[in-house]
Amino acid sequence: MRGAALHAARRAAATGPRHRPPPRGWDAWSARTSEPAAGRHPLADRTVSQALHRRADEIEAAFGAIAPTLQELAPRQFAPEFAAHAAATLHARLQLDIPAAALVASWTAPLDLRALHAHCVLGTFCRLIERAFDRGLSHLVDGEPADALIRRWGFHAIDITPCADGRLSGVTDYILRVPPSIVAFRESYAGAMFDVAQSVRHWESVELQRWRTGTPNAAEAPTRFLKIGVYHFSSIAPRHEGCAAHGSDDVRAAGALLERLNQFDQAMRTLHGARCAVATLLIGVDTDTDAIRVHVPDATGRMDILRHADSAILYDATAHLPREHAKDAIRDAVAACAGVPADDAETEGMRWFCGYLLKNNIGQVEAVRDWHRGRYADAGHTERLIVVGDPVDDVQLRNLAFQAQMRTVEEGAADLDVGIRILHAHHAPHRLPVPILAHIRFDPRIPGAAVTAEQQARRLAAAILARHAALAARGGLSVAAVVRAADGSALTPIDLTASHGDASPEVHP
Amino acid sequence: MRGAALHAARRAAATGPRHRPPPRGWDAWSARTSEPAAGRHPLADRTVSQALHRRADEIEAAFGAIAPTLQELAPRQFAPEFAAHAAATLHARLQLDIPAAALVASWTAPLDLRALHAHCVLGTFCRLIERAFDRGLSHLVDGEPADALIRRWGFHAIDITPCADGRLSGVTDYILRVPPSIVAFRESYAGAMFDVAQSVRHWESVELQRWRTGTPNAAEAPTRFLKIGVYHFSSIAPRHEGCAAHGSDDVRAAGALLERLNQFDQAMRTLHGARCAVATLLIGVDTDTDAIRVHVPDATGRMDILRHADSAILYDATAHLPREHAKDAIRDAVAACAGVPADDAETEGMRWFCGYLLKNNIGQVEAVRDWHRGRYADAGHTERLIVVGDPVDDVQLRNLAFQAQMRTVEEGAADLDVGIRILHAHHAPHRLPVPILAHIRFDPRIPGAAVTAEQQARRLAAAILARHAALAARGGLSVAAVVRAADGSALTPIDLTASHGDASPEVHP
Repeated sequence: MRGAALHAARRAAATGPRHRPPPRGWDAWSARTSEPAAGRHPLADRTVSQALHRRADEIEAAFGAIAPTLQELAPRQFAPEFAAHAAATLHARLQLDIPAAALVASWTAPLDLRALHAHCVLGTFCRLIERAFDRGLSHLVDGEPADALIRRWGFHAIDITPCADGRLSGVTDYILRVPPSIVAFRESYAGAMFDVAQSVRHWESVELQRWRTGTPNAAEAPTRFLKIGVYHFSSIAPRHEGCAAHGSDDVRAAGALLERLNQFDQAMRTLHGARCAVATLLIGVDTDTDAIRVHVPDATGRMDILRHADSAILYDATAHLPREHAKDAIRDAVAACAGVPADDAETEGMRWFCGYLLKNNIGQVEAVRDWHRGRYADAGHTERLIVVGDPVDDVQLRNLAFQAQMRTVEEGAADLDVGIRILHAHHAPHRLPVPILAHIRFDPRIPGAAVTAEQQARRLAAAILARHAALAARGGLSVAAVVRAADGSALTPIDLTASHGDASPEVHP
Repeated sequence: MRGAALHAARRAAATGPRHRPPPRGWDAWSARTSEPAAGRHPLADRTVSQALHRRADEIEAAFGAIAPTLQELAPRQFAPEFAAHAAATLHARLQLDIPAAALVASWTAPLDLRALHAHCVLGTFCRLIERAFDRGLSHLVDGEPADALIRRWGFHAIDITPCADGRLSGVTDYILRVPPSIVAFRESYAGAMFDVAQSVRHWESVELQRWRTGTPNAAEAPTRFLKIGVYHFSSIAPRHEGCAAHGSDDVRAAGALLERLNQFDQAMRTLHGARCAVATLLIGVDTDTDAIRVHVPDATGRMDILRHADSAILYDATAHLPREHAKDAIRDAVAACAGVPADDAETEGMRWFCGYLLKNNIGQVEAVRDWHRGRYADAGHTERLIVVGDPVDDVQLRNLAFQAQMRTVEEGAADLDVGIRILHAHHAPHRLPVPILAHIRFDPRIPGAAVTAEQQARRLAAAILARHAALAARGGLSVAAVVRAADGSALTPIDLTASHGDASPEVHP
């Protein structure tokens, strides 16, 4: 549909603004930056881009300080009072509290700086989680609250499954720029291959709340549960830097994910009838530019891997247009992609939402053009750590973390292995171990849940080390575990050196 | 409360039948055996006992035929045409279809009769599952359907967690004698230590159905979700033949389970408010006699590990009474245990249900007295196999299967180890391997669920063999895997010899 998008843009340019008054939801974001700062695209929200850029700089700086600090400390490790000095330095430079006792070195037992590096990476990640970035970015939701807005567009909850690939590590904050309040679930899997039954359970938990407590809205309200799948590809090196789980083949990646989304839709209809009302949306991300392809559903809700509206193309086609014309061009491109007239009432909500994502992403496309000369210098992987277990979204940035959700390594082994293979490839040349964080969330309202979460985190960490024992034995892995009562609350580190039995069966002589 | 029960029985004997007309639910079962067959206790339902006895005989005979058949075949294995003969014999005697090619022996490669034994045990178990016993036993639910009856008693779903111990392998059919239709969930764990969050999910799935489809009844109906925990103890050898997971200490077993039930109750109140309406019930089973202790909740729903109504005591106290007097004695014992008057309206439903279980169990107490001289000859473990994964209830019998529910060995390792330790102890002296069945159920309405289930079954089997590799290497374990679309449907065996990758990480040189 690239042709259609361009055609629509031209048509918009030719015919001027539509006469049909835009709905308030659409207006909300169009009214956002009434006076855009200096820049090129009339729809790119530079205030948001600048805030995201500052946040990215802060995150990069935090991790970037680790190696120079350790490099500076290394040669002094045999000096008197080194441990206290090192602890003070790490506190001052990295804001990490590492007990001096752990920093004592002697010529027979020098500091394990590789392990310390991984420890600092994991510690920095945890510190940034608790740093409480303003992820809501108020300008993302001005006009009216975004959650009210998405309900107006016909959705009451959004469940996003991106690929575990670290280049999608900023997918909701940077690429899609959707506020956390509208994302009910975000779970990542290699190749975005989510479990259909698990998504059904997500729907069920939301639905029960709607029935029982009327939140986020009443069960009778004619809104839908939206499941979004996000695959990715590389425009620079499509055969090499695409999705590893799908052999770096974007047709395969999109096709497999679309099939999974269709399975979810089918399962929901069979299990809960036509009234269950779910919507699905397939999105592709070019990890070189952060541009997106939105596979706008047609009037029957069907999507096609070859039919999409592309933010990069729309950016170029509309950058020169007056603001209102640019908006119309996007609307027309989305309608053309859906194969419906621009005033089709049935598909209106989904089309507005697709337009909202494309417009948001135009800001990111411009940010990458401005700050990375249009394409990221690192087309491939430079993730700093792997996160397994429950999702962490508090700190987001492209190539920050390979993140794969799993309850156990037994089930998540394939995803874990992909992550370790990827990180090992770019850590090993620097003789650095791969840092892995096992992160388990629990509901503090359930008695005993904290203990269960700790056991699970401990088990997960042990299983990672057991599966990759050879790599761990030569210092190629560094695993930490944390539990957390809920999003936004403090992390509790788990002491993995403490013995908790259960490691060996030992049940028969 | 043993004293109270006796006292109540005596009081009932002294004062005759109550004048208050019993509710219809209670009548339903009291009317059941209007003309009891020859026997001792007026409330023991001998029709049911005899049907259960026949079923037990059939199950025992099926497993009992395995060893003699193999013993007979063993010396002939080098005779000409043996394979075809053996296949025909196994088909005729055990109703198992084993291809002749798998039964070819030579003097350099004799039959692995140990493995064949395990194979036959697993095959027989699967055959019996598909044999479709009439588990509903129509006389269990005559008068009116039991599910309507439990709703009248104030419950809309029952979730039972017994211990994984094989001596509770007949808990719902034999010991509690509740029809399958009223058991929404039955999951076993070592020491009955269920996961509270998982029980909350059970409640949620039932609740959503009530809201959306009005099944089993409408969400507005003032009925409750009943969670039952079943621990066990041994009256013959309390220190040795009790629950292994709780150090054969019945106070610990009951206390830990009561705490878990209270945690569930607390979690539900916090998560879903007082309106969530769950009830909990603690039951103890004497595995030597199948008699039960019912820890009847008091007016506030609270239970006490020392306060219970005992079926064995009630049996003796009421065996000589006229039928109506015996019923009153049980009612009084239950009311005394709850600490409420016999006409207390608030606790009526739960008390009727406790009375129903005690009355049912009196039939089992008598059956054990009749057919096992009051106590089982095998106080300890003689389980024939271990079942892991999803629950199997189609074929039940004391000491048939150690059954522990788990998604992965990573999470269920402790339960698996207990099971293997127990079965190894009584299989090893006979030089027989421990048969383990990995059983995964799936919802056929979810596209792709069959494939996911097969992967899970395969993973589970592989993880069992990996964890107990040394035992497996010397032929001490035999693992099979099956998947099943739903209860009552056919089992699909999984060929574990086929390679499916994923076993080794192999991700770094």
